Amino acid sequence: MRLLEQRIVKDGIVKDGDVLKVDSFLNHQMDVELFRQMALEWQRLYADCGINKILTIEASGIGIACIAGQVFGCPVVFAKKSKTKNIAGDVYTAKVESFTHGNVSDIIVSKSFLNPGDKVLIIDDFLANGAALTGLCQLVEQAGAELIGAGIAIEKAFQPGGELLRAKGIRIESLARIKSMSAETGVEFCEN
Amino acid sequence: MRLLEQRIVKDGIVKDGDVLKVDSFLNHQMDVELFRQMALEWQRLYADCGINKILTIEASGIGIACIAGQVFGCPVVFAKKSKTKNIAGDVYTAKVESFTHGNVSDIIVSKSFLNPGDKVLIIDDFLANGAALTGLCQLVEQAGAELIGAGIAIEKAFQPGGELLRAKGIRIESLARIKSMSAETGVEFCEN
Repeated sequence: MRLLEQRIVKDGIVKDGDVLKVDSFLNHQMDVELFRQMALEWQRLYADCGINKILTIEASGIGIACIAGQVFGCPVVFAKKSKTKNIAGDVYTAKVESFTHGNVSDIIVSKSFLNPGDKVLIIDDFLANGAALTGLCQLVEQAGAELIGAGIAIEKAFQPGGELLRAKGIRIESLARIKSMSAETGVEFCEN
Repeated sequence: MRLLEQRIVKDGIVKDGDVLKVDSFLNHQMDVELFRQMALEWQRLYADCGINKILTIEASGIGIACIAGQVFGCPVVFAKKSKTKNIAGDVYTAKVESFTHGNVSDIIVSKSFLNPGDKVLIIDDFLANGAALTGLCQLVEQAGAELIGAGIAIEKAFQPGGELLRAKGIRIESLARIKSMSAETGVEFCEN
């Protein structure tokens, strides 16, 4: 999606350690008009798929997912990162490893809000190693819901998550796919 | 706001310890069409105030704030709950005590995203003891920005936060103000 790529080039900052800072428009300050354009693109890509629920994960996925929920006309559910070790029995749960923070956390969704018959679109801001997306897919599977696919803002295509999950048959529509990046040369996007 | 009050009566669940569960429409599963109606009401209440930035706090404020950002046509910034003890110098920071979790955490906002000249509307899902709202007000003050007011979804008016902050001159527009509640008798709203 040209609009997002152009914005990354304009306002994104590449830092050491494969870090791309996009906190001026995506995940700290949020440009909700950009989010709307992104949501319209996912709507075009997932037209006629019957999506009736959007699933994301706190915190930075929530804003994008809510604007997408407006465009798709469906409720949005966000998985919570559990801080408690005692998880009640009325939730679906998966483990997500954070490469950034070097820890493993449980993510949970109440069983009330993901159901068999749901046609789910997962939305998130980043896809890199695929840990969060894998966990969210597991929640959908536990619920017996149908995973239509994922809508990702920025995919670091030089990291393995996207390839791994597509190889499992999961449809992933990333609006900006980064082929390589460095503080010196900036960001290079994939052709397709 | 009748629409929100009716929804609380219909789908809210009162639990022991002054807990109101609204996770089917407000802070786990999110009814974004309801959020839009709430945002339109805040727009009516804060008309002609020149609001050019919305500030909220992760995680459950983000969805409501983003829909409000669309209605107000302005960017949204969410304060992050810091997990690290070393906070870099380029952020505003405040301490927020959580009565639910029994701890104190730092909330931070990058100095890049709150500026003198900004006219800020703070959005959050709940107001009870006022700890989060107090912290957010401090961030606005540190930035030298102008605090226009706060838009709260649900205020527990039987807890002291709203009264304390209004006494300091802060304008707070809560769309549902709960006078009292119990598992037996349900929710009673304030008249005004």
